[in-house]
Amino acid sequence: MNQVDVAKLVSPDDKKIRIVPLGGLGEVGKNMMAIEYGEDIIVVDSGMMFPTEEMLGVDFVIPDVAYLEHNKKKVRGIFITHGHEDHIGGIPFVLRKLSGVPFHATKLTAGMIERKLIEHGLDREMQMKVIKADDKIKVGSFEIEPFQTTHSIPDAVGFAIRTPEGLIIHTGDFKVDFTPPDGKVINMARLAEYSREGVLLLLSDSTNAKKPGYAMSEAEVEKSFLDIFAQAEGRIIIASFASLINRIQNVINGAHRFGRKVAISGRSMQNNLEVAAKLGYLKVPAGTIVKLEQAMKMPDNKVVIMSTGSQGEAMSALARMAEGVHRQISIKKGDMVILSSTPIPGNERKISNMLDNILRRGATVIDDRKSQVHVSGHAYREELKLMINLLRPKFFIPVHGEYHMLVAHAELASENGVTKDGIVVMENGEVTEVTKEAITKLKRHIPISAVMVDGLGVGDVGQIVLRDRQAMALDGVFVAIATIDKQNGKLIGSPDIISRGFVYMREQEELINGARDEVRRIVKTGAQGFGPQHDWSVMRAALRDELGRYLYEHTQRRPMVLPVIISV
Amino acid sequence: MNQVDVAKLVSPDDKKIRIVPLGGLGEVGKNMMAIEYGEDIIVVDSGMMFPTEEMLGVDFVIPDVAYLEHNKKKVRGIFITHGHEDHIGGIPFVLRKLSGVPFHATKLTAGMIERKLIEHGLDREMQMKVIKADDKIKVGSFEIEPFQTTHSIPDAVGFAIRTPEGLIIHTGDFKVDFTPPDGKVINMARLAEYSREGVLLLLSDSTNAKKPGYAMSEAEVEKSFLDIFAQAEGRIIIASFASLINRIQNVINGAHRFGRKVAISGRSMQNNLEVAAKLGYLKVPAGTIVKLEQAMKMPDNKVVIMSTGSQGEAMSALARMAEGVHRQISIKKGDMVILSSTPIPGNERKISNMLDNILRRGATVIDDRKSQVHVSGHAYREELKLMINLLRPKFFIPVHGEYHMLVAHAELASENGVTKDGIVVMENGEVTEVTKEAITKLKRHIPISAVMVDGLGVGDVGQIVLRDRQAMALDGVFVAIATIDKQNGKLIGSPDIISRGFVYMREQEELINGARDEVRRIVKTGAQGFGPQHDWSVMRAALRDELGRYLYEHTQRRPMVLPVIISV
Repeated sequence: MNQVDVAKLVSPDDKKIRIVPLGGLGEVGKNMMAIEYGEDIIVVDSGMMFPTEEMLGVDFVIPDVAYLEHNKKKVRGIFITHGHEDHIGGIPFVLRKLSGVPFHATKLTAGMIERKLIEHGLDREMQMKVIKADDKIKVGSFEIEPFQTTHSIPDAVGFAIRTPEGLIIHTGDFKVDFTPPDGKVINMARLAEYSREGVLLLLSDSTNAKKPGYAMSEAEVEKSFLDIFAQAEGRIIIASFASLINRIQNVINGAHRFGRKVAISGRSMQNNLEVAAKLGYLKVPAGTIVKLEQAMKMPDNKVVIMSTGSQGEAMSALARMAEGVHRQISIKKGDMVILSSTPIPGNERKISNMLDNILRRGATVIDDRKSQVHVSGHAYREELKLMINLLRPKFFIPVHGEYHMLVAHAELASENGVTKDGIVVMENGEVTEVTKEAITKLKRHIPISAVMVDGLGVGDVGQIVLRDRQAMALDGVFVAIATIDKQNGKLIGSPDIISRGFVYMREQEELINGARDEVRRIVKTGAQGFGPQHDWSVMRAALRDELGRYLYEHTQRRPMVLPVIISV
Repeated sequence: MNQVDVAKLVSPDDKKIRIVPLGGLGEVGKNMMAIEYGEDIIVVDSGMMFPTEEMLGVDFVIPDVAYLEHNKKKVRGIFITHGHEDHIGGIPFVLRKLSGVPFHATKLTAGMIERKLIEHGLDREMQMKVIKADDKIKVGSFEIEPFQTTHSIPDAVGFAIRTPEGLIIHTGDFKVDFTPPDGKVINMARLAEYSREGVLLLLSDSTNAKKPGYAMSEAEVEKSFLDIFAQAEGRIIIASFASLINRIQNVINGAHRFGRKVAISGRSMQNNLEVAAKLGYLKVPAGTIVKLEQAMKMPDNKVVIMSTGSQGEAMSALARMAEGVHRQISIKKGDMVILSSTPIPGNERKISNMLDNILRRGATVIDDRKSQVHVSGHAYREELKLMINLLRPKFFIPVHGEYHMLVAHAELASENGVTKDGIVVMENGEVTEVTKEAITKLKRHIPISAVMVDGLGVGDVGQIVLRDRQAMALDGVFVAIATIDKQNGKLIGSPDIISRGFVYMREQEELINGARDEVRRIVKTGAQGFGPQHDWSVMRAALRDELGRYLYEHTQRRPMVLPVIISV
């Protein structure tokens, strides 16, 4: 990014709040929001995101924090709303860039972050401050007060952020659940107090802004589980997301009630369970959790297996069980498989394939179309209306969601008492200024890019590498090697051809011989103007273009042609 | 495929019906079903399918007809239910393998097939017989009677197939629509007659076997369009599938009613419109259809643009309009964009991205979640129950659908009077035998594969090519070239390294130099046992393995390593 631009943007004199989303606005995932005032910046969340379909081979994506790096001196603290990957997954990478900046998180969230940092060998680097709902944390010009919300993981908070210009409420991810498994209900009374105090700006979760009605309570899932557990005669296999601690609690409750043991398959879920149980956020009756090996020796009707892989990911435990290639468990007739999840857009096909494999093995499948075995952790439209009506903010910015979700949420705010001028729809890298009087999206924005993580590389995969991967994914690669006598520019021996992912070479002798003839022809033509200072780049370009044309004419495919000239 | 196996399977003596699905069972698309008795085979449909996500670079997939080729003498005719790609798209390829076999289709369907064959230069090769509902076509031991159904395209039929063992009903794709735009209602009376005659076996469409209730009538879409057209003040842009002739009719009706002209964007839709209008299946008031260039010169409130690209396909007209890179049209503020379609599973993300681009340009979007602008062409559960209860078949095989859909439809049949023993869930390549008394799925099955079409190649892309494409899609390719003196086995010059899609080479000099050192080391080791008859394959394998290991250690990526040894 251009640091001059950034420097221009930040002016310490003017007394305006600046809202600068660095991730999660215009997309689902890698949530990160900077809020600044004068010489102070605070940051809410540091998440990661799964790669989009065109990001071939990329493991995951994290926010671009160049803007924060450049303004590191001003960054007073990072405040985390809850322990899901799309809010904490970027922390190890952010920490490397912003060492010394303190992180603030509630107890469970802090535990999950710590576990993650240990894996990255970074646990000693972090300055972690454990906070709890209703604390008041003063940093720079801000006073931050976490308030209790409900989500699909315990210990989730939103932030009331007091600034010299007025009160900002950031909801974090939330739903209005009056019967969560841990009994810690979203603090409506506190929200009402903020309302009385006067809310200048509301930043509210837009994930389900297009879904009518209310998200069901997690208590409904518990009921469904009890019904299903009462009927099941064989093994019960439940797939869900690794970090839905509330769901894990419901499974444990159901298993305990019906005298079954629970075995966990999937390292991330196992880790989360351990952290949550240790910190007292999961109630596990003694002896309820067993190892997978133990479970395999028990009668089928005494076992619940809880697993990751609800999205049909190719290498996940459940997909392997469904294909019969899991090391320990194969799905079998009599098993009842519960998909306690909802498809993440784009995964529908993979999930369908997995479902088919499970059914082919004779097991029964229950998903959220058949029974209430999943509820969303994000507020639906009626809950979003409730939040807006309760807080009566002067200004409104929808956060967390794809652009169409943000637009839907903005329309909802407009229908619920926020003036149109008071609503700003913004995306990552845009900047909105807020004062007591006005909210204005700036024309300038911060140049921002998705930072792709692939193996050990962070940010080294860019558009060129992706474009090459895409080209080879479509039609493969075609390497043509010409060994040329540097004395006379003539070809030595026969040109070598290697191709992968293009055609099945053994059945295409004629095509390959034709390509060799092309190479001979091009080298011969090139050799005509041959001299001692020969520039091979012209011949290389000719090989690439003319071979490409030859191959397209004969196959209507466009493999990536890599010409190699060896002069000896 | 092993032709010996096939020959064994076919025995001309025994008097049993054989049901042999060649496509569309266990998947959505490339529908094709062989029905045989003694010396006779008839085939229903010859469709194509879009590639699944792991079929990188493949254009589309067609059924494997090796079984029919091997039994070509017995194939008496191919009967087409309707003109959608998943029922006719494979015909050009099937025709090349089964030349001389007559095709039977209703008028519109025949017109659409002819158009397709002209594009392939095959129109003179085909023996096409135009049929109509209630005809009786005798071929071999079969008498085939098409009956009128309703679907999202006019002139769709199912087939009543009389055999010496009894009556088989194949529904084709259908819904129970009593108010289709052309007024040609599904022929319930004829179905009741078949029921009286006695139905031995029902093969029924399972696409929506998991959807509760009824599919809405196409008439509901017309109502929604009229409502929307009445409100629209700017341009109306409607995206749908190219072959939904009924939908095109509704758009034309709405435009005519409100004094707008319709311009079509998308060659396939244009073709279908021309064929359907010419044959009288689309009623187009004179002057209603204009060219895109004309439409661009008219006032916005006089224009409807109908386009393909409702699935967010990257190169489609609508996606390009949304990105502002379409040659003629860009979406602008005031446009009303209607997605008159439903997401095909797996396309959700692409559609969301396109939606976001449309909204960013300030246009309004209406999709089937906001208004009834799309209805399915496939029967929902209540309609499927109606079909089963009307026909009261002795035996039942669910067709057209992924395995979980077939299972759901089988359960429905069992709940609606078909005995469990009378229901067979089968997939492509499996064989079921049916007599008056019994239905039995055989243990043997026909070896069958998805035939992938990529450019000019039909079936030449197999597992090896796909695996290579997948590998390069993930981590790219790494070519290492060692030029070796064949006199002494020593390296000449510095090893050449070319890589694409792996790392950005310019920033990775150290890594690349390290790889060169690896090559030097390996060649040196290999040269120790050097002799005149040197076998380079050992050194090639060492280069591949050890370079692969070196690169993984340093990047945790696994590019495809292609070692090249040039001995001079």
